[in-house]
This record gives sequence, structure tokens and C-alpha cells, in this order.
Amino acid sequence: MFRVDNYTPTRVVFGVGRLEELATMELPGKKAMIFVTADGLMEKLGIQKRVLDLLKKNNVEAVVYDKVTPNPMRKYVMEAKEIAKKEGCDFFIGLGGGSSIDTAKATSVMLLNEGDLWDYAYAGTGGRKEIKVAAPIMTITTTCGTGTETDPYCVITNEETNEKLDFAVEAIFPRVSIIDPELMTSLPRTLTLYQGFDCLFHLAECYITNKHENRLVDIYAEDGIKAVAKWLPVVAEDGANLEGRVHMSYAANILAGYTQSLINCTSHHIIGQTMGGLFPNVAHGASLILVAEEYYKHVRKYCEQIFDELGEMMGVSADANDPGQGFITGLVNLLDKTGMRDLAMSSFGIAKEDCTKIADMTVNNTGIDDMDRYPESLTVADVQDILEKSYK
Amino acid sequence: MFRVDNYTPTRVVFGVGRLEELATMELPGKKAMIFVTADGLMEKLGIQKRVLDLLKKNNVEAVVYDKVTPNPMRKYVMEAKEIAKKEGCDFFIGLGGGSSIDTAKATSVMLLNEGDLWDYAYAGTGGRKEIKVAAPIMTITTTCGTGTETDPYCVITNEETNEKLDFAVEAIFPRVSIIDPELMTSLPRTLTLYQGFDCLFHLAECYITNKHENRLVDIYAEDGIKAVAKWLPVVAEDGANLEGRVHMSYAANILAGYTQSLINCTSHHIIGQTMGGLFPNVAHGASLILVAEEYYKHVRKYCEQIFDELGEMMGVSADANDPGQGFITGLVNLLDKTGMRDLAMSSFGIAKEDCTKIADMTVNNTGIDDMDRYPESLTVADVQDILEKSYK
Repeated sequence: MFRVDNYTPTRVVFGVGRLEELATMELPGKKAMIFVTADGLMEKLGIQKRVLDLLKKNNVEAVVYDKVTPNPMRKYVMEAKEIAKKEGCDFFIGLGGGSSIDTAKATSVMLLNEGDLWDYAYAGTGGRKEIKVAAPIMTITTTCGTGTETDPYCVITNEETNEKLDFAVEAIFPRVSIIDPELMTSLPRTLTLYQGFDCLFHLAECYITNKHENRLVDIYAEDGIKAVAKWLPVVAEDGANLEGRVHMSYAANILAGYTQSLINCTSHHIIGQTMGGLFPNVAHGASLILVAEEYYKHVRKYCEQIFDELGEMMGVSADANDPGQGFITGLVNLLDKTGMRDLAMSSFGIAKEDCTKIADMTVNNTGIDDMDRYPESLTVADVQDILEKSYK
Repeated sequence: MFRVDNYTPTRVVFGVGRLEELATMELPGKKAMIFVTADGLMEKLGIQKRVLDLLKKNNVEAVVYDKVTPNPMRKYVMEAKEIAKKEGCDFFIGLGGGSSIDTAKATSVMLLNEGDLWDYAYAGTGGRKEIKVAAPIMTITTTCGTGTETDPYCVITNEETNEKLDFAVEAIFPRVSIIDPELMTSLPRTLTLYQGFDCLFHLAECYITNKHENRLVDIYAEDGIKAVAKWLPVVAEDGANLEGRVHMSYAANILAGYTQSLINCTSHHIIGQTMGGLFPNVAHGASLILVAEEYYKHVRKYCEQIFDELGEMMGVSADANDPGQGFITGLVNLLDKTGMRDLAMSSFGIAKEDCTKIADMTVNNTGIDDMDRYPESLTVADVQDILEKSYK
């Protein structure tokens, strides 16, 4: 019999054109620090000015912090915190994608906690101090990404130790997230596909790990996977298709955020993260795509029934004579349809010999034991086999 | 294109046997006031002692307030608040059904707000003062009822003015709700059916009002209606069927709470509430059952497509030659299967002439204009027609 655990307290305001509500909605403070990336994209797209104007209408002051990097860094968090203190900012807005939002989250922690951010990191050289409070966080999402809008995680890189670590603490659930798919119609095709597959894997991995235990994980994952299977090829073809953007953003920014708030992904994500750590030019979504087909062929034997259910969500009927093939077929169809099955490790500068190191790091360094719920753990040899079979 | 609005911040701990976690989970205070009904049911069932023992293991003190009435009253809220202040209670536990939980909610408001509860009521003789804060609320549910475990509402009766009013304010979302279906296996058959149909109507009415706008309302309602259609006849037949209790409690205590947190019910609920106000011996669920078939026949013309979708959720295939019949058939089947189609107003002491007064009060006193989203409002004559056709 199933159970339900749910704690997803972020207020979600999702829909086309809803950024406008920033002018009238109740906000969690009187002076915001807004985080944007250093490439000036939010300014070029006119979104930054629009947000500042809307905040002004809402009688909220704002300071822009515009040094956020693609892999958000500890030193900028500490710098932003100092500026926020001096300026008297009392809440933080991540504007853009995961890096802006995660920098806002980490800064909100440091505004109310003494010392250095790394004192609170819970792995590697981190000080493992507990985070009980953080200043209010708000997000305004312009990508169809990670789910950080609705989850209690942020990932920050320590530029001194080269560690890239997760912070997972309920205090950094955003208070409110505005998700307006209209802001996503100009996302480039490649990013759309990388993020779309990342979303698919978030949902499918959580569904696999869940084993039908937490009922809400199942219904969120199912609605999201159906959306990705139907709409990812549409927005890959035509990024301006607003209906497709609505469905994809709902799946990625809301449902995948929820499932990840409630349960772990699988070792598929750990292999991808490890590859991305060793080869920073491999985008997160790309790293997942590169090994997906072989990964799921390998673990299929552990979860045939669940794979057939995932297949049904993707429009593939289960075949009693070939149990577990459903998800493999659905995945391969989607990779083929979007051209992503041709993605090759070699084109990212990865040599076949590197598979050994990625496999070793995945199992012995990043670690997968706490993630998977298969009847047996993947070994270094398993992961190496997956990587080598994927290699082209 | 759809939107999503979501704000359902209650931490939900749902599953068989999970009451035990009360001994170890993080609680929102150090000294609880526990609300139970004056009939001593929680004590007789041994649940009250179990809860006190578990709290003790968790190093939390507790005071029991045991005067809660079926229609929770203002005067007991004010009395409980005084005791809580004197005893130094810092959070409130509603143990049992809606009346205990709603009394806990109202008392949590008064602990942190000056004056009388009715100063904060937002209708009738209420003072319409704003409620911004409330002390932490926790619920431990033993019925399969209203959804108050996961919603921001409570209903309190003012014994001096005979007003029964809703308080709807985000501060009274419970912090944490333990929902353990094992505590529900001894619920009597009639209560099970009344609450089961109440749950069905919460979900179906929200689905109707939503018009596919807020996507989460649709997926919550769909999963809940499927559960009720399948499992209500099972638990009506065999109350000890734990699997059935799990599904019904999930539908009522979680999903119906969520849909009601996100959108209104229809005038079906207003007719039922008005009847229950005039004839307090008619239980809430019964009042809804008494008019359901004729109500939905009347409004079917406004929402044929949606009725066919509701029918599909209940296992009735849509018929293109008879659009909108799906939900009517599904509902009538369920009423027949559970014996509830024979429920008669006359057996509750309602005379046919009373239909005039109920109809008039529904439209002109309780009011339905803010609820329904049909293309035209139901008139007094419409409601009277529904009531008279329902009468037996």
C-alpha cells in the first residue's frame, strides 16, 4: 500500500504573461537583491528592465548583482552577501536559470548565518554546520531547467578547492516562484533539448526510485513524462510554440522540482554529474543524454514492470513477450526524433580511455550507494561497461 | 493554455501505521494543547492515550481540551485560548475529525490575536479584522473527511448569533498533518458513505469550476475521483479493508484538501450547507447526497465535455450521442451501489414546502454568485426545482 509524503511549500505562479503580477503580488520583503548572469543576457532581452519596473510599481527597491557565472561560485555568494548587508536588502530574487537562482539561494543563507558558505557545506572540505534559517528567496525563471524554482537545493562551486557541492536544506525552498513560459520562447534549440531530456530523466528516475511508494511522486512523474514525450519534439522544432513551452515548463519547473523534492534520482544522474565535473564543457543535460540508452538497458532487468509503465506514458504499448522494453523504445524514439541519439562523447573531447576514470570517480568518489534502490549496486565495471558501450 | 497556482505548504505524513512517527518527528513547539470531542471517543478508542504517550517520548508536554462539539463553537475556542495561555501551550493539535481540527485552528488564531474570535469573522456580524498570524497547528486525523488537514479553512459557529461562518486564511494551514488510515477502519458505514460522497463532490465540483485552468486541480481531482469510484463501495461493504481506507483517505484528506485550497466548489455545496444550517440533523455529506442527482442533471447543459471526462474517471465511457451523461451515469451507479440513492429528505424531517425556504436562503442569504462559473447563475426557481425534484 502506498504512502504520501509531501512538503513543497513554494508558492507557484505559473502561466503565460504572469510576470506582470510582480507589480501587484505580495512580496517577501521591501528591498530585493536581483541576481543575473555576467553575460548580460537578461539585460539584452529586456527582461531585467521589465522586472525592475514591475518591482518599482510594487514599491519595492532593488539592487542588481550581475556577476553570476554558469557554475555559480562561492566567492560571488560571499561578495553578494556583503553588498546585500550594506544595501539593506531583505530578500533575494534569482532571475534567469539555475545559476542565478542557486546564487540567490546561497546568498540568502549567508545573510542570516555567520562565517563562510563552506562552513555549511555537507561534504568534502565543508564544515557541515546546520542551516536553520535563510532570508526569503524568490525566483523568476527564464529557462526550462532544473526544478530549483520549486525545490530545496542549490549547487555551488568552491573556486579554491574545486569542489562542486549540493546544499539541501528546507530553508532554501523559494517563498514564491514566478514561472512565465513566454520568457522561454527564445531559448536556443540545443539548450531546449538538453534541458528537456534532463527533465525527462528527473521524472523517470524519481519514478523508478519511488517504486510506487509515495503516490504523489507517481502522479507528478506521469503527467510530466507524458508532456515531455509529446511536446519536446514540438519545441525542438519550433521554439516559439507557446503551447509546447507551457507544457515543457510545467514538466520541468514544477513537476520535476516536486518529484526531486520528494525523492532521489538514480545513479544515471551521478554518472552525468561526474562526467560534467571532469569535462566541464559537457552540459549537464548532454552528459545524461550521452549515456542514457545504455544506462537504461543495463538497469532494465531490475525494474521491468516500471519500465513498461514509463513506456506507456511515452506512447509505447507494453509487450508481455519483451517486458521492460517499453521505456527503452520510448527513449530511443525520442532521442531519434530530436537528433539527440547522435550526440557523441568524442565531440566533447572525451577519449574512450577516459571512461575508466569517469566510472571509477562515479562509484568511488561521487558515490551512488545512497541513491539507487536496485536489488544490487552498480559496480565500477558496470558503469565502465555503460560508458564504453555509449562511446562513439 | 493552462496555468498553475499552487500553495499547499502543509507537511503531509500519510500512511498505515505512521502515527508512530509522532514520537520522533520534529514538532512545531514544546507544549501542545490537544483538542478532542466531548463524547470521549478518542479516549474510548485508546487513541488519545497513544498520542499522549508518543508526545511524551518526543519530550513534548500536552494538555487535553475535551469539550469540542460536532459544530465547533466560538465560546469553546475562547475558553481553550485562555487555558492555553495559562498553561503556556505553544502549539495546537486537532485530534479526530473536522470539529477538533477546526477548533484547534481557531484557537491558534486567538492565541496570537487580541479580542474575540468574531472580530475576525469575515461575514455576518463579524468584525472583518485581518488575521496575519496564528500559532502552529498540527492535525492527527481519524476520519476520512473534509480536507481541513491540508487546507486553510475552519468553520466555527457563534452560539450567540447562531451564525456558522468560514475562516479562510493562510495562517491556519496546518504545519504538519499525520494521516494514518489505520485509525479509520472502525468508522461506521453511514459516516463512511457521507464522507465518501462529500469527498467525491469536493473533487468533482473543483474539477467543474476549474475548467482545466489550473492544471494541478485537474490531476488531483482525477486521481481522487478514480479512487472514490473504485474504493468507496469496497469500504462501505467492509470498513476494515485497509487498502480501501488508504485510497479513500488519500482522496479525501489530501487531494480534496488540495483542490479546495486552490479553487472553489460549486453551488451544490451551498445548497447542502444551507439545508444543513436549517436542519442541523442533516449531516453535511447527507445534504449533498440528497440533491446530487437532480443538481447535476440541471447544470449538465453548462459542462457536457467536463461531465463526460468525470464519467470516464468513474469508468463510464462517453457517448457522443448523449454528451454530458457520463458523470450522471457514474454518480447514479455509485449511489445505487452504496444504497445512498434511497436517502430521503422526508426521513430527516424536511417537508416538501421547506424546499421554498431552502432555495430562497441558498440564493439570497448564503449566496452562490461568487462560487459558480456557469454561463448563467442559478436562480431561486432553479434551486427550488432541484430540491423539489429531489424530494421524496
